[in-house]
Amino acid sequence: MAKKTKATKETGKYKVIMLGGLAEIGKNLAVIEYENEMIVVDCGIGFPDDEMPGVDLVIPDFTYLKENADKLKGVFITHGHEDHIGAVPYLLKLIDTPVFATKLAIGILKNKLRDHTLDYEPELVSVEAGDSVKVGKFSVEYIRVNHSIADACCLAIRTPAGTILHTGDFKLDTTPIDGEIMDLSRLAQVGNEGVLLLMCESTNVERPGYTPSEKTVGKALDGIFRSNPDKRLIFSTFSSNVHRVQQIIDHSVRYGRKVAITGRSMLNIVSAAVELGYMDVPEKVLIDISEIKRYSPEQLTILSTGSQGEPMSALHRMAFGEHDRVQLGPKDLVIISAHPIPGNEKLVDKVINELYRKGISVHRDSSTDVHVSGHACREEIKLMHALTRPSYFMPIHGESKHLFEHKNLAVEMGMSPDRIFVSEIGKVLEVGASGAAFNGTVPAGRTLIDGSGIGDVGNIVLRDRKHLSEDGLIVVVAVVNDFDMTLVSGPDIISRGFVYVKESEELMAELKSAAYDSLSDSLGEGLKDFTQIKNRLKDDLSKTIYQMTRRRPMVLPVIMNI
Amino acid sequence: MAKKTKATKETGKYKVIMLGGLAEIGKNLAVIEYENEMIVVDCGIGFPDDEMPGVDLVIPDFTYLKENADKLKGVFITHGHEDHIGAVPYLLKLIDTPVFATKLAIGILKNKLRDHTLDYEPELVSVEAGDSVKVGKFSVEYIRVNHSIADACCLAIRTPAGTILHTGDFKLDTTPIDGEIMDLSRLAQVGNEGVLLLMCESTNVERPGYTPSEKTVGKALDGIFRSNPDKRLIFSTFSSNVHRVQQIIDHSVRYGRKVAITGRSMLNIVSAAVELGYMDVPEKVLIDISEIKRYSPEQLTILSTGSQGEPMSALHRMAFGEHDRVQLGPKDLVIISAHPIPGNEKLVDKVINELYRKGISVHRDSSTDVHVSGHACREEIKLMHALTRPSYFMPIHGESKHLFEHKNLAVEMGMSPDRIFVSEIGKVLEVGASGAAFNGTVPAGRTLIDGSGIGDVGNIVLRDRKHLSEDGLIVVVAVVNDFDMTLVSGPDIISRGFVYVKESEELMAELKSAAYDSLSDSLGEGLKDFTQIKNRLKDDLSKTIYQMTRRRPMVLPVIMNI
Repeated sequence: MAKKTKATKETGKYKVIMLGGLAEIGKNLAVIEYENEMIVVDCGIGFPDDEMPGVDLVIPDFTYLKENADKLKGVFITHGHEDHIGAVPYLLKLIDTPVFATKLAIGILKNKLRDHTLDYEPELVSVEAGDSVKVGKFSVEYIRVNHSIADACCLAIRTPAGTILHTGDFKLDTTPIDGEIMDLSRLAQVGNEGVLLLMCESTNVERPGYTPSEKTVGKALDGIFRSNPDKRLIFSTFSSNVHRVQQIIDHSVRYGRKVAITGRSMLNIVSAAVELGYMDVPEKVLIDISEIKRYSPEQLTILSTGSQGEPMSALHRMAFGEHDRVQLGPKDLVIISAHPIPGNEKLVDKVINELYRKGISVHRDSSTDVHVSGHACREEIKLMHALTRPSYFMPIHGESKHLFEHKNLAVEMGMSPDRIFVSEIGKVLEVGASGAAFNGTVPAGRTLIDGSGIGDVGNIVLRDRKHLSEDGLIVVVAVVNDFDMTLVSGPDIISRGFVYVKESEELMAELKSAAYDSLSDSLGEGLKDFTQIKNRLKDDLSKTIYQMTRRRPMVLPVIMNI
Repeated sequence: MAKKTKATKETGKYKVIMLGGLAEIGKNLAVIEYENEMIVVDCGIGFPDDEMPGVDLVIPDFTYLKENADKLKGVFITHGHEDHIGAVPYLLKLIDTPVFATKLAIGILKNKLRDHTLDYEPELVSVEAGDSVKVGKFSVEYIRVNHSIADACCLAIRTPAGTILHTGDFKLDTTPIDGEIMDLSRLAQVGNEGVLLLMCESTNVERPGYTPSEKTVGKALDGIFRSNPDKRLIFSTFSSNVHRVQQIIDHSVRYGRKVAITGRSMLNIVSAAVELGYMDVPEKVLIDISEIKRYSPEQLTILSTGSQGEPMSALHRMAFGEHDRVQLGPKDLVIISAHPIPGNEKLVDKVINELYRKGISVHRDSSTDVHVSGHACREEIKLMHALTRPSYFMPIHGESKHLFEHKNLAVEMGMSPDRIFVSEIGKVLEVGASGAAFNGTVPAGRTLIDGSGIGDVGNIVLRDRKHLSEDGLIVVVAVVNDFDMTLVSGPDIISRGFVYVKESEELMAELKSAAYDSLSDSLGEGLKDFTQIKNRLKDDLSKTIYQMTRRRPMVLPVIMNI
């Protein structure tokens, strides 16, 4: 265990437990405990991967929070992205606890809570960068950082055990759109006072150098507006990227264009951002999408959702000719001002290919500088370490490769490896002035949201879905008289997702006959246990199917007794 | 229509029909017809995407070739990659036609044919770069190009109608490993003689500049060998990249290491390549994987499959501790000498994350220059156009975005847009000295291979698989006496992939009762048509399920009558 490096009067220990955001992208949630109290930092959703077909959302397993609801003093949100606030409604359904966030995040959260039913009025508390919130023995200071959403903060969490610095998501933008540079001087001060533990995000740790300023996108935008005076411009970006949207609107104003918005989340966030003062839109610039007919292409900018190729999004509908207000054509230029999130590449490509196929011009990330990341690259991450000079360090917010590369980065900077804790969800890190060490685990995992169901889809259901999707299904049904154990009706064979039945009559007849033989054998041998009969039927049929097709569909034997 | 630009004596017209490789990556196949004869260029497989669960392979729809089998004079293979030769066995099952290819491709094809049963001895003809093959009225000249597999060629196809230049896959490597530079001078000659139609690949048309030489990988390899003298080195790359494998072996020899191979395709191709003289391996360098125990880490290089993260591959098994011969640990460095094929990013990341998690060092494409592409970037593609100076041009081998960008490139070079034909699979381009135009279509599409089934999985089956995978299945079974239309047994409800039944007893009971009500209503109203009764049961149950869960599982009503 590492020795204490600074002379301090800190007493006691923290427990730091991640319930999400480690070895995964998404569902960020940190639990920080001191004595008999705890706070939560961020409470986000994750997105289902290929192994979770049909699942809508993934949230952290809240078991540990439920069991310790009496200790929970509040949830502190670093910024308003889904992977940091999306699971708050689900937590509030279980526990009535105050939620603290800057006002844009509170605005987004309120919007989100409209889709959920709570039997009480939740306590949502607006804070500003610079504020310190006291709950129980904790004091939580909000410190300005830059990110791809407005009003993002990192947190300095203080108790008598010392200071934990949780970065949230950040980048350093020295020419930000809203003029608010990451508060380097305050971070340096906190560093000087002494940081016990740094919890720093790891998303871009593999990328060298610095992430470019949001302002560089402005130059690219200007080029697009200038060189396409005769085209209608359709921009697709993340709706929460308020500054990007502001820049697109600013350029539209400058080049004499009206702006129409399409896509529910874009409409929601722009109206919230304008209302809360995050965006500045001159009067009469925004028009309703139903009014675009009145303007010629060169008078219009359209702001759209769908930068990730989402199949129901406005951009997808426009590309495939399914949008009721916007028909695209050769007079249009589509600009995708975003980078595909890993896993979405093919969805985005599908939209781009369709646009090309229809003769519509496309600009995007890879061809022009119409996007910059919201996350710190290697040198900015180093800056965070250099400013905060922590005694201990836990990389967060990343897949395993990111977390371990982040550890390598810290070691490169001279930190001793035994002061760096690459954790796992549910693992308990105890950290205080006297040292730091892992000590035990708490329940952690994922809870799947499917339709209105929370957690009723688990591994068995997913395994069945996977199996069904790969080889389909054979249902074999028979009616047996359980008095004399004779076959009364059937066996009938029904298949779905297996073969095109009309062109496979011979195969289906063969299967029916195999099922009949299996049942006859079982009944002939005097078997009376329906489970045994069914298992044999399943085995016999599976064997025949594999021999004939080299496939292994799910075989579901149903025997009805009368 | 474009005017003829050169004074020639060319007579007649070609028909050029792509049966694959347009608006998709994979299943490349071009049909080229002249008078009453045709040849095929390449005959590859495609890989199933997310919309094709459970499908093993995709091959072109051969209907048009079957219908015209008497005209087919032969298949000409440009190189031995799966997307160019993989479907040959399936074509040979339908049509006995000669296959021409350079000897490495013939070797790979022979290997492949061992997994298939043909009722005749196929005619596989080895050719060399520089050869011209005459079949019917066609003469097909093989011209050397560079690519990520040895012995790749482009084809100059000649008839009295003029010359078609089909590039296959290519790059220009002026320092190739085998010393064989793309035959620029012959291409220039062909260009001087006059090219009627250029069919040029489009894979990297979005990338500016030139693709680096395979030799640049050698420098990166040298750095890895030099700076890791104490580690065991595990290289994962495409087994068909014979030159890459040769470089890894060369460096192993230079640094005094033995080389062990793991993974079936790597073993197959290395032995074929050595046998055919494409690789040069000194004696006693290759050892069997079972012998690695006798050597210390610094004496060993392991060559492995799995650079695409394939779940059953050697690298995957090593990463997840399931390889029976190789256990990885901190003494190992894994080098992934390949770039993920679009769509495989997450699979590759899964392996990389697992390696990091286990504390195993990983080098890969993005961190070091351990891979170069096998395809021409923008400047090389321009070079191909400049050398061949075709009268007409058809971009091939790419998604829509690539094909249209390739058209843009040709226009940038001064070609008239009406001489450029972005085609679709099945579309017939007629081209001759007098002009070029699309004229009609032929049957084209995809045939899915699943297990031993060829084409028995179609859209309905896929739609069912998709449905089953997203929301699972409810089977409801009842026995009805069709004499007096009374319910004899059931209804029973069986579900798979829907909810975890043990924790959803209430829901299941509710569904059973809804099914009972529906059946009682139908029978009570005197309904006698089983189809009607089943449809109503399905509708009633679906409605109840949606109300209770907001999900739409597949509902399969089965009524047995006695």
